[in-house]
Amino acid sequence: MRVLVPFDAREPKTRLDDVLDPGERTAFARAMLGDVLAVVREAGGDPEILATASLRDEYADVPVTVDDRPLSPAINDMLAGADGPVAVVMADLALSRPTDLRRLFDAEGDVVAVPGLGGGTNALVVRHPEFRVDYHGASFRDHREIAAEVGAEFHVLDSHRLATDVDERSDLVELLIHGTGEAANWLDAAGFVLAETDGRVDVRRPDDSDSERLK
Amino acid sequence: MRVLVPFDAREPKTRLDDVLDPGERTAFARAMLGDVLAVVREAGGDPEILATASLRDEYADVPVTVDDRPLSPAINDMLAGADGPVAVVMADLALSRPTDLRRLFDAEGDVVAVPGLGGGTNALVVRHPEFRVDYHGASFRDHREIAAEVGAEFHVLDSHRLATDVDERSDLVELLIHGTGEAANWLDAAGFVLAETDGRVDVRRPDDSDSERLK
Repeated sequence: MRVLVPFDAREPKTRLDDVLDPGERTAFARAMLGDVLAVVREAGGDPEILATASLRDEYADVPVTVDDRPLSPAINDMLAGADGPVAVVMADLALSRPTDLRRLFDAEGDVVAVPGLGGGTNALVVRHPEFRVDYHGASFRDHREIAAEVGAEFHVLDSHRLATDVDERSDLVELLIHGTGEAANWLDAAGFVLAETDGRVDVRRPDDSDSERLK
Repeated sequence: MRVLVPFDAREPKTRLDDVLDPGERTAFARAMLGDVLAVVREAGGDPEILATASLRDEYADVPVTVDDRPLSPAINDMLAGADGPVAVVMADLALSRPTDLRRLFDAEGDVVAVPGLGGGTNALVVRHPEFRVDYHGASFRDHREIAAEVGAEFHVLDSHRLATDVDERSDLVELLIHGTGEAANWLDAAGFVLAETDGRVDVRRPDDSDSERLK
């Protein structure tokens, strides 16, 4: 299956600016992208990067389409030109394992959607020619409505690993606890550790200066 | 299967104090408990409440054990006295549906665990006589280690719905988007609506005074 992996190549992961500087955010985002591409392949998918700017030749074995428009029109052009099923998997699903993506690719339905934390849509499989995406705001509800409008059967996949797009500080906790790939290793090498609180576990970085070498 | 549902009957949901007053927190916690008990039953489980204080007769059809100790020793006494499998399902899993709990009850393994957001353990099925719980801190990792120590096969169930224990403001977003039970109705009646932001969707309460009647 064709699997589009959208990637913000310009200023990735801005909502992590309280814990990572710009160079680190880029390195961390690239580590997550590498993990996702590898997991898509292991799950039997054919990944294609849809990037907002050139990535040079860092992922030479994966086709890259550069499109600087917002995500929805860029994806919708790909969907309009496709002649078979297309999956869209976000580049920050750093908790995903091959078994999770096989569950996604194997799920039946004209449209299979995985909700992300906070109302987003982290992954889609689109098998209906008229379905189009709208990633603005609480997109999960919108995608359900769009599917209904075009008469597409809508199937929801329930997965904590795929629901966790790594965007905010609290997501780093999930990655430290459950992650197994290069992005989790990067966080570990950057000095992040779990920190217990009165509520949910947080992250901290005891010796921030150690991280300089990672940029 | 016996299904223990621990419930803080004294001061529930303190981490929602930025959006709910004490009377509302109690009403909301009771709504979630009612949803969880109903879903456990629909999934074929036999619920028992393990409460920190008396609940009077509000759940007359469900056995209640009052134990004012911390959660871990209270649960461990129940596990030590059990002669068959026991599940532990948190009372704030307000996104759970019967199909999700059937997945839990049907999963194979000496110990089946569902991680919660932030490193907790939201649900367990215990089929090994020597396994004991330790809910302090990042309990999911600890439960994996405890299972290994007693030679119990540890199976992890990946579910966004069961990973979402409703403890904090951001969890209300998930309940508003994905919830179908009385707790979701309560939030709706209390005036909570989704609010788009630059990042993940948030909740807001446009007319706070409307909520007075719900207490």
